[in-house]
Amino acid sequence: MKIKIILSCLLLLMCLAGFSQEKKSGKGKKKSSAVIEKGLVKVSVMYPFAEGKTFNMEYYETKHMPMVAGFLGSNLVKYTIEKGTASGIPNTPLPFMAIGSFYVKDLAAYQAAIAPNRDAIRADFPNYTNASPIILVSEVVK
Amino acid sequence: MKIKIILSCLLLLMCLAGFSQEKKSGKGKKKSSAVIEKGLVKVSVMYPFAEGKTFNMEYYETKHMPMVAGFLGSNLVKYTIEKGTASGIPNTPLPFMAIGSFYVKDLAAYQAAIAPNRDAIRADFPNYTNASPIILVSEVVK
Repeated sequence: MKIKIILSCLLLLMCLAGFSQEKKSGKGKKKSSAVIEKGLVKVSVMYPFAEGKTFNMEYYETKHMPMVAGFLGSNLVKYTIEKGTASGIPNTPLPFMAIGSFYVKDLAAYQAAIAPNRDAIRADFPNYTNASPIILVSEVVK
Repeated sequence: MKIKIILSCLLLLMCLAGFSQEKKSGKGKKKSSAVIEKGLVKVSVMYPFAEGKTFNMEYYETKHMPMVAGFLGSNLVKYTIEKGTASGIPNTPLPFMAIGSFYVKDLAAYQAAIAPNRDAIRADFPNYTNASPIILVSEVVK
């Protein structure tokens, strides 16, 4: 009788342990699907290519982008960097040397975070490029 | 004595059960990090904004992009759509109305898949826009 009770308790414990693990992995899944971008605001800083324009990707990736990302706090969901390699239309020049994009939850919060740091951001431009970026604000549709 | 053996066996089972759950959630994590984009080729089709230019996002999202994605097969890792809403630089016009991007493993395979379908793709343009896109091929750095 005693054994049966102990066994029942242990079985119950096993079920609970299994359940808690399931919940944990469920949370893990939720976390990874939290990087779904649909609905976020994307701010893309695009550096057009032209004769004589230069871009130091190593500085941009290791210094400039982490600095700007640091200003954005928890509003920033993720940021991406891409290096332009070619135009997809034959016999046309490379449109952009590089694009850095910030995926944020709220545009007003992004602007409020950038405003007091705009001079520091602009002062860093000559460290990696002599091109003037264009900036696209967009909504992630898919 | 018998009880001790049974208890030991059950404890061992519990440990094994816990371990297998851990492994499962580990696998889950691996799967979600498989969508990491670094190193992929990104082909961005960008529709510039100008006076009189139009763009039907609903058609683009539900018809055009799925059609093109269908041509790319397993080379396509994912595709994204964004809707341009503003320029990030005050007093400058919206740079792009929309951007559709294909993240592929291999550029040559992308080109080989698009080539025989180029006419069908172009013939679909008037169904959603009167703008001519520019196309940027880039490498995902981060």
